[in-house]
Amino acid sequence: MVGSAAQRSALDGIRAVLGPSGVVEEARAMAKYVHSWRDDYGVSVPLVARPSTTEEVAEVVRRCAAADIAIVPQGGNTGLTGAAQAMGGRAEIILSLERMTRIRDVDPVNDTMTVEAGVVLQTVQDRAREAGRLFPLSLAAEGSCTIGGNLATNAGGVQVLRYGNARQLVLGLEAVLADGRVWSGLTALRKDNAGYDLKQLFLGTEGTLGIITAAVLKLFPLPRDSATAFLALENPAAALDLLVAARERFAEAVSSFELIQRRGVELVARHIDAGVDPLATAYPWYVLVELTGQEAPGTLRQAIEEWLAGRFEAGQVADGAIAASEAQAATFWRLRESLADALLKDGVSVNHDVSVPVASVPDFIAAAEAAIGEACPGIRPLSFGHLGDGNIHFNPSQPEGSDAGAFRAEKGRLNRIVHDTVARFSGSISAEHGIGQLRREELVHYKPAVDLEMMRTLKRAFDPQGILNPGKVLRADGPA
Amino acid sequence: MVGSAAQRSALDGIRAVLGPSGVVEEARAMAKYVHSWRDDYGVSVPLVARPSTTEEVAEVVRRCAAADIAIVPQGGNTGLTGAAQAMGGRAEIILSLERMTRIRDVDPVNDTMTVEAGVVLQTVQDRAREAGRLFPLSLAAEGSCTIGGNLATNAGGVQVLRYGNARQLVLGLEAVLADGRVWSGLTALRKDNAGYDLKQLFLGTEGTLGIITAAVLKLFPLPRDSATAFLALENPAAALDLLVAARERFAEAVSSFELIQRRGVELVARHIDAGVDPLATAYPWYVLVELTGQEAPGTLRQAIEEWLAGRFEAGQVADGAIAASEAQAATFWRLRESLADALLKDGVSVNHDVSVPVASVPDFIAAAEAAIGEACPGIRPLSFGHLGDGNIHFNPSQPEGSDAGAFRAEKGRLNRIVHDTVARFSGSISAEHGIGQLRREELVHYKPAVDLEMMRTLKRAFDPQGILNPGKVLRADGPA
Repeated sequence: MVGSAAQRSALDGIRAVLGPSGVVEEARAMAKYVHSWRDDYGVSVPLVARPSTTEEVAEVVRRCAAADIAIVPQGGNTGLTGAAQAMGGRAEIILSLERMTRIRDVDPVNDTMTVEAGVVLQTVQDRAREAGRLFPLSLAAEGSCTIGGNLATNAGGVQVLRYGNARQLVLGLEAVLADGRVWSGLTALRKDNAGYDLKQLFLGTEGTLGIITAAVLKLFPLPRDSATAFLALENPAAALDLLVAARERFAEAVSSFELIQRRGVELVARHIDAGVDPLATAYPWYVLVELTGQEAPGTLRQAIEEWLAGRFEAGQVADGAIAASEAQAATFWRLRESLADALLKDGVSVNHDVSVPVASVPDFIAAAEAAIGEACPGIRPLSFGHLGDGNIHFNPSQPEGSDAGAFRAEKGRLNRIVHDTVARFSGSISAEHGIGQLRREELVHYKPAVDLEMMRTLKRAFDPQGILNPGKVLRADGPA
Repeated sequence: MVGSAAQRSALDGIRAVLGPSGVVEEARAMAKYVHSWRDDYGVSVPLVARPSTTEEVAEVVRRCAAADIAIVPQGGNTGLTGAAQAMGGRAEIILSLERMTRIRDVDPVNDTMTVEAGVVLQTVQDRAREAGRLFPLSLAAEGSCTIGGNLATNAGGVQVLRYGNARQLVLGLEAVLADGRVWSGLTALRKDNAGYDLKQLFLGTEGTLGIITAAVLKLFPLPRDSATAFLALENPAAALDLLVAARERFAEAVSSFELIQRRGVELVARHIDAGVDPLATAYPWYVLVELTGQEAPGTLRQAIEEWLAGRFEAGQVADGAIAASEAQAATFWRLRESLADALLKDGVSVNHDVSVPVASVPDFIAAAEAAIGEACPGIRPLSFGHLGDGNIHFNPSQPEGSDAGAFRAEKGRLNRIVHDTVARFSGSISAEHGIGQLRREELVHYKPAVDLEMMRTLKRAFDPQGILNPGKVLRADGPA
């Protein structure tokens, strides 16, 4: 929807500035930007802008601001909340950062890498590794998501326990503000208390306060040794005890600690790989533990074997396998990473990306299973996720043989029941996926009024016209 | 200065709300709040408010807001920039958080501690240790500074390399806003992407956007093993090479990596402890390295011995001592921690708390020494600090036999020369001490206009009346 002559003229200006390769307007070519990858979001736009420099981004924003055209920033379009899709109802374009793919600098002495927003996460990881360093952000979409999107959504993933969320992995940022000014905060400093830490405005705010165009990322020593174990447990409380013991014994060396409910293993075995279960007997719960360190290869494997021997004797662990090779470790991880796909192939599920204090995970899972089982008899629970971060993907599936459409219609009601349980444990309704369109009304429901007003104050202060990703995180108009 | 009847009445209201133990008004009793500990800042105020609960803080703020009285929040009053002192020129009170000393919760499973703002840092450390955990923030003032002040100034210290600045050590906050509303963000979650991360507004903003009243802190496993080495080197470049090699070999186990120039050892030997030098021969530079880990005690000492043997052979390290006991490690640390005191006893120095990218530290020190030597012949350089964070305390002393007053009058000019050098290396004029009053005009000089405007936008949005610590970080009126 582009209404006014001023808006048409602004689009002409953007075409002129970016040139033919900088805009996409043909419907078929636009589809991959307009629709989310699961095709659950998508409203058509007159134009997808593909600037290739920060100055071009600024120029697009200035022209949109002048003509009151909203801008939806987009990275790899791998999100799950509709944050990178248009919402309709006003003049709106998508601004893809995909052509901003320069790696401006790799510095293995300062342990930093300066990259543009459109660099694919895996490329960042690869370039770090080539320099003998680790960039630890790692998640299922890493082959196609971009670092700009990772930072704008404060991405999590499987190594948060050791290295933190995306927010912790960045030293400096460059961003284009709502009026088209460029903020150059590309510092490579580990300590800087000279004024407010302005990069925080753009980390995790989903493009609603500015458009990230580049970043200085932290690099880490590349681990020389690792050990991976797949362990069977009676219940989540035993998994929590094991996590606490592992952290006391190995501290930061515990880089991943993933919880998997039995049904997850069964789903992967049924839909993806029949031989996926590393253990001969079935157990109700599992954890996938990874240690990484700098000792001679094999050191951690021996250390975890000795440590686990004591855990077996004490009855804390029921059964388990320690990967004998990197190939076997990769099969353990394939199981973990196939869970979402296997679940999709098994009918309709209601998915939740929630967190509670780590100590509350066992009680939360029990309470959420009870509440949802009462609300929907026969529903089949599935919990998996990052126990070490208190982040559980609580994704129960429709009852066996039930009607998919009828179950789908229940999603909102079931979400609310799970989120009510999350609230009782002082948790978060979005641990790592963000808010976007998907959880915006849930956020309004659960966040205290003061929080919503403070968020709204930030939005008004940094985007008074409301042109940056309107309707995401916060409502586009009226009280938050 | 309290002008209006409304202001007098607001102070009466504060007296009534807080009771006799909640206010200090007698000049002698007020002195320790009014003056900074080095006595370089201090303007009298009519009253020091000492609320003991968050609701009392809110009540004081509401009464001040209604009568346009400015509020200077104060923790342990150990800062170096005058951030906790009044500036005069308007009605202004000091609000001390010192009575808010409750530890609300210690949770060794979730690895969190919930504390009020007035808890002394050392108390936080001690309570963590009693629970078998580490709270890693550690700095010279830890016996008297408060956690609220640490968070409001994003304190650094000697373990940033491994654990990060204060900003990284907090999961949740509670703060009182400029209009007296209480923001309750005391989450204990490791992952939470449900909306903007509002705590960032209060971390490192020196009480100018809100008053921190409580926090949820992260705890860590208590290290079981440590090793401390004092190593002699030819120059800072050799120290940097050694840091990179140490990080590759030991990764996060390198918890401190402190650089000390020879003159520092001489100063401590002259003014504090004649026998402080652990080595028989003098060398131009030293590093104090500490490793911590979870292995059996003694493991790291053996590992660092083996590793250093290779460094000696390669000529990277000239000489060194590995602490044979905790007592000896403590003497190494006493040397490091006595540097500031010894410097004070040696005449006038111009002090700088600056950072540059870690890789630029050697070139920065050389350039800064050259520039300041040219500007002030005979000036005696002294650099020490946190090499692993790129944070150097560059504190040269007056030329031998020169006039102290004349040298003192040169401070501004010499600051500017050092800060110009910092700017050439894309560094920060305040790495860990903050801005306060001391560096405010330097910040205006060095920060780009866009940054200052963004900071001013935040200030206007969250403190439109300008009553929260006015004149700190930003100018109290006019453009930033």
